[in-house]
Amino acid sequence: MRNIIDELTSALGPAKIAVDPATLAAYAVDQAPVLDYQLPQAVVRAESVADVQATVRACAARGVALVARGAGTGVSGGAHASEGCVVLSLERMNRILDLNPDDETAVVEPGVINADLNAAAADHGLMYAPDPASFKMSTIGGNVATNAGGLRCAKYGVTRDSVLALDVVLADGTLIHTGHQTFKGVAGYDLTGLFVGSEGTLGIVVGVTVRLKYLPREVHTIAAFYPDFRSAAAGVLAVGKARVQPAIMELLDGGSLAQLDDIHGSDLAARGASLLLIQTDGFGAAAEAAAIRPVLAAGGAVVTMEANAEAEQLVELRRNSRGTEVDDEYRVGEDVAVPRSRLVDYVAELEAIAAEHRVQLKVVAHAGDGNLHPTFWIDRVDNAVDADAMARLGAALDKSIAVALAMGGTITGEHGIGQYKLRWLGLEQKEPVRELQRRIKELFDPAGILNPGKAI
Amino acid sequence: MRNIIDELTSALGPAKIAVDPATLAAYAVDQAPVLDYQLPQAVVRAESVADVQATVRACAARGVALVARGAGTGVSGGAHASEGCVVLSLERMNRILDLNPDDETAVVEPGVINADLNAAAADHGLMYAPDPASFKMSTIGGNVATNAGGLRCAKYGVTRDSVLALDVVLADGTLIHTGHQTFKGVAGYDLTGLFVGSEGTLGIVVGVTVRLKYLPREVHTIAAFYPDFRSAAAGVLAVGKARVQPAIMELLDGGSLAQLDDIHGSDLAARGASLLLIQTDGFGAAAEAAAIRPVLAAGGAVVTMEANAEAEQLVELRRNSRGTEVDDEYRVGEDVAVPRSRLVDYVAELEAIAAEHRVQLKVVAHAGDGNLHPTFWIDRVDNAVDADAMARLGAALDKSIAVALAMGGTITGEHGIGQYKLRWLGLEQKEPVRELQRRIKELFDPAGILNPGKAI
Repeated sequence: MRNIIDELTSALGPAKIAVDPATLAAYAVDQAPVLDYQLPQAVVRAESVADVQATVRACAARGVALVARGAGTGVSGGAHASEGCVVLSLERMNRILDLNPDDETAVVEPGVINADLNAAAADHGLMYAPDPASFKMSTIGGNVATNAGGLRCAKYGVTRDSVLALDVVLADGTLIHTGHQTFKGVAGYDLTGLFVGSEGTLGIVVGVTVRLKYLPREVHTIAAFYPDFRSAAAGVLAVGKARVQPAIMELLDGGSLAQLDDIHGSDLAARGASLLLIQTDGFGAAAEAAAIRPVLAAGGAVVTMEANAEAEQLVELRRNSRGTEVDDEYRVGEDVAVPRSRLVDYVAELEAIAAEHRVQLKVVAHAGDGNLHPTFWIDRVDNAVDADAMARLGAALDKSIAVALAMGGTITGEHGIGQYKLRWLGLEQKEPVRELQRRIKELFDPAGILNPGKAI
Repeated sequence: MRNIIDELTSALGPAKIAVDPATLAAYAVDQAPVLDYQLPQAVVRAESVADVQATVRACAARGVALVARGAGTGVSGGAHASEGCVVLSLERMNRILDLNPDDETAVVEPGVINADLNAAAADHGLMYAPDPASFKMSTIGGNVATNAGGLRCAKYGVTRDSVLALDVVLADGTLIHTGHQTFKGVAGYDLTGLFVGSEGTLGIVVGVTVRLKYLPREVHTIAAFYPDFRSAAAGVLAVGKARVQPAIMELLDGGSLAQLDDIHGSDLAARGASLLLIQTDGFGAAAEAAAIRPVLAAGGAVVTMEANAEAEQLVELRRNSRGTEVDDEYRVGEDVAVPRSRLVDYVAELEAIAAEHRVQLKVVAHAGDGNLHPTFWIDRVDNAVDADAMARLGAALDKSIAVALAMGGTITGEHGIGQYKLRWLGLEQKEPVRELQRRIKELFDPAGILNPGKAI
């Protein structure tokens, strides 16, 4: 039998196979901390469903692990290379195959960039709702693999809620179609939902049918600056009690504001110690904003209505609040979610954890969903840190997870388990549930070649 | 080994076990046409999770089929008794265990009536969004089993979109918990979604955590009467093109209006040959209604804004449009969905099919979702019909399904496959997809005791 590289080169042609060290290194990791660095044997850049099927079959025949990826913007290590694997990039499968403005649906290849789909939909007064912060770079296929969330999920739902149907290449190379082209459909088991969020461990998504929503004609943006973080978190609950559903409700602590000012030259930290950024949209946007403002003011906020240019800039700053750094073992962004009523308690706990373990902390949150992204880090001196600092960082992370779970939360609201969060999964899910998932994995991928060691 | 009835009586106490003929007959069927009438051996009325576990274990030990049911309002035969089965009624497990107005979630037992949960939620300005026409009788557990839809799905989603977590008793009696208490959560595979809509074939749902939405403070209702059914269907597309999202968009043909007038003494048929009934809700309700009205008028409708009392009555009439009759082999209500752009074409096809096969037809539709409920029937003379009429009815049904599929539709938008629609499932789903589902069933229920012969 030929080796895997020869076989792939023969089947797909040399232009789609890369084995040079620079490419292998570029495709070895996504944006998550790395626990087990591995270089792939080869990178396949598929251009068609047939390319994907040929790649899967070649790997299956040789028992070679196959790690599918989109743009590699994930932050849980779902696309990190496994030992001896082939990485299958779907970036070149980037065509919008159909966009039907009357059906309010689109059919796309997995490599279509989220923002590109939105731009095409906007021409028809439509939008693809899920908007992870990475939406200008990340692919729909990657969004599907992680069941990505984003800023406007509280009102419009997560990726799962916008996916109607999938084309999937199974571990033996078979192509199947799941789901329905219609908004509703309940024939048989929900295989579509099973593939969404499965991080390429059950099959390779090669086509996605999505439902589009109406692009709101009117958007109002409220910036509420608070004297402290906990009051801002309380503002989230107050808006909920007023029973108004914003499209976006983002919470930023003082550390996040200071960092944004550093990078962008803004003056956010001068305006308050914490920011609650709210957007309402649609026909009720003005009335909703009017209902929200007094509620926030009553909670101690300095409330401004932002003109469109400033508002867009603020939301843009929020989307970029991860900064330019990529996480590593010294700087870890978390992704817990807690029931909304526990937001204020959890924020207080985070501050206490950072103080107790003497680690740095900044927090942003998709607050409408109770989904928090605390980033813990330790300072590096000449790129070196001591073992004690590393231990303190690890302890702070573990504590932040344990506290979220004790409050009825989850260890991952939208980033996925990937490789990095596997260590905590057993704290959230009991053995019978984990065993069921292992057996589902075995059913779909008996040889275990699809993205081994991830997700479950 | 004791027989199953003795075992259940011993384990649960005689008050929870019924074997009298009247009870067995009452629990033998749901509201669907019956293809294979069977009486259960016994009916268990569980009052606790432990009761369910004991029942499952007793059936598993003896290889006895177990058919779980809520209120029995399903219309696909998902709760029809199987040969020699025990029916497990969950009606007595009807407690709302928790309703947290700050988390905007509730935890309920499966036997809670949909309307009761809504009444409890309304006290806090909240609602449970999925509203099948049966919502005054049907249970949350039954809604979960069928992934029930309803009138306001186009805006608020189907049952799946409101379910966060489940407690499920597996086929061996093990109790598991799936999902998350938070709005978002992506840890592991989506087992929750797999159980939703699985019609009791993968496990018995004994607890449901749901997300609640905000009860709209303002609702506007528009009645648009059209001179013919196709123009009314075109009105649905026109509202979509205007990019306005109503909460409810229901379409009724002339036959449905005449039947409602017969039963309720209303004067709907005198007002037009077809009715498009639209509700907008929330802060933008008035503006949305104002945007919709001229769009409908331009399409030939006589448009009225309905005062609240009349509007509620109209929506109520629509909810009761199935009439008082239960479907049987002479009168079959369908549940196809088509891509929205095909609504007008499909409505035209339905009228042609009824004429060609000389069968009666009336149609209502959750038009915003492209989900249609045509009812085909043949007249009975002295309760007798001839074989030719039966053949014509069958041919009309088959044709209506084939045409929907050819348009990219599905054979069931919200009712489920149950027993009745199994004959058409192979037309919609190809063999590899069906085989995957069989293997999932085998994984969860290797002995095949859970609601055999349904759903897949």
